[in-house]
Amino acid sequence: PHIALVHQRLGEDEMRARARAFYEQMNRRRTVRFFAPDPVPREVIDDIVRTAGTAPSGAHTEPWTFVVVADAAVKRMVRELVEEEERVNYEQRMGAQWVQDLSPLGTTWQKPYLDTAPYLVLLFKQTYGVDPTTGARKVHYYNEISASIAAGLLIAAVHVAGLVTLTSTPLNAGGPLRRLLNRPENEKLLMLLPVGYPARDATVPNLKRKPLEEIAVYV
Amino acid sequence: PHIALVHQRLGEDEMRARARAFYEQMNRRRTVRFFAPDPVPREVIDDIVRTAGTAPSGAHTEPWTFVVVADAAVKRMVRELVEEEERVNYEQRMGAQWVQDLSPLGTTWQKPYLDTAPYLVLLFKQTYGVDPTTGARKVHYYNEISASIAAGLLIAAVHVAGLVTLTSTPLNAGGPLRRLLNRPENEKLLMLLPVGYPARDATVPNLKRKPLEEIAVYV
Ligand SMILES: Cc1cc2nc3c(=O)[nH]c(=O)nc-3n(C[C@H](O)[C@H](O)[C@H](O)COP(=O)(O)O)c2cc1C
Ligand SMILES: Cc1cc2nc3c(=O)[nH]c(=O)nc-3n(C[C@H](O)[C@H](O)[C@H](O)COP(=O)(O)O)c2cc1C
Repeated sequence: PHIALVHQRLGEDEMRARARAFYEQMNRRRTVRFFAPDPVPREVIDDIVRTAGTAPSGAHTEPWTFVVVADAAVKRMVRELVEEEERVNYEQRMGAQWVQDLSPLGTTWQKPYLDTAPYLVLLFKQTYGVDPTTGARKVHYYNEISASIAAGLLIAAVHVAGLVTLTSTPLNAGGPLRRLLNRPENEKLLMLLPVGYPARDATVPNLKRKPLEEIAVYV
Repeated sequence: PHIALVHQRLGEDEMRARARAFYEQMNRRRTVRFFAPDPVPREVIDDIVRTAGTAPSGAHTEPWTFVVVADAAVKRMVRELVEEEERVNYEQRMGAQWVQDLSPLGTTWQKPYLDTAPYLVLLFKQTYGVDPTTGARKVHYYNEISASIAAGLLIAAVHVAGLVTLTSTPLNAGGPLRRLLNRPENEKLLMLLPVGYPARDATVPNLKRKPLEEIAVYV
């Protein structure tokens, strides 16, 4: 059953102004790797996760689970698991090219932010669905793409709320983290995003973004 | 070289209010499949694409190209290519389960919006980079995830501007569309998003979104 779309047209000047203001706001976002330990209200995190949950998804499967870790002991275990794998990634597994490609960011295998940030959001994609009563499997079309779009909305929501995050993909730590957090087999870790305030002296790599001409083609 | 992060802390009440308002705004977004032909200022589309281009990306590779099609003849060719493949998807290739999973949406192989909407944005992921002077290849880590996050920001920006879109993944039409638009071999079509005003009588499937308790787990 279809229903009428609720929509209000904006005037052209209003559209222009809103599109520009949102661009300027989002363009001030940076990935931050230095967090303050200061607490953040849980309701803010809730609304950020709710915003991510408004994302479109293939055949409306909503193939995502957001595990929000606030417990200090669990954060410490997450840090240990990630650092163990990242140490191998940096020192042996990934090779010189990878290490060099990351060097402008100044990252290492050490991830102190994993126990400093008040929250860690672990985004799991659901590779298939399971009916809670029958146990039947449901196909989750494009689950990784859908969950990544949801991550885009989450990242926007964190920024709108005046907080910062780090989009990270802890290489090879997905399995151990899934087991630590007791997530079922259909869920695979897609991203780990610490959320909080930046440290007072936080720095960021001095990166530039490509201008419109380098990312857009008009036909 | 690192630089100081520019950041202003918000008060807790302000944070709560902003996180809530953004959630409510994004929760009003719907995928729309009925477009008005009315023109939309190009600057608005430019700022929407610029917003997508602020997305984080693996090792800051910015692995995306946004092809914006406004030309009526090219839109018609895009429609023909997509419908040709979608007809085979619906009638033969994909099978009964797929057709049934899509049935609540009321979609068919016919895509009239592909020539009604004033703009079609075709998002290509760059599977690797090519140095413009040396021709050397560059690894694009997590290019699909990064480009999908950028799509999330694009979808948010369209909505903030008072416009609508449809997130679509034209199954099996990626190769033909890449060639039609003369995109290089390292680019693969990830999504096609028509952008414009909704038709005055646009309807949407009567879907509900999962509540927070079904998508979030607290530890
Ligand atoms: C990766 C992805 C692929 C999609 N592909 C199509 C598509 O090919 N055709 C279509 O009509 N809708 C497509 N959709 C839109 C979904 O059906 C839609 O997001 C979902 O039904 C939820 O509706 P909503 O966006 O209004 O909340 C796609 C969405 C995503 C995220
Ligand atoms: C899919 C993806 C994976 C990423 N993985 C990591 C990571 O594991 N560690 C890290 O420090 N940064 C990671 N990043 C962050 C990028 O390095 C960052 O977005 C990029 O350098 C651009 O900086 P900006 O977000 O401040 O614009 C990742 C980003 C994306 C989109």
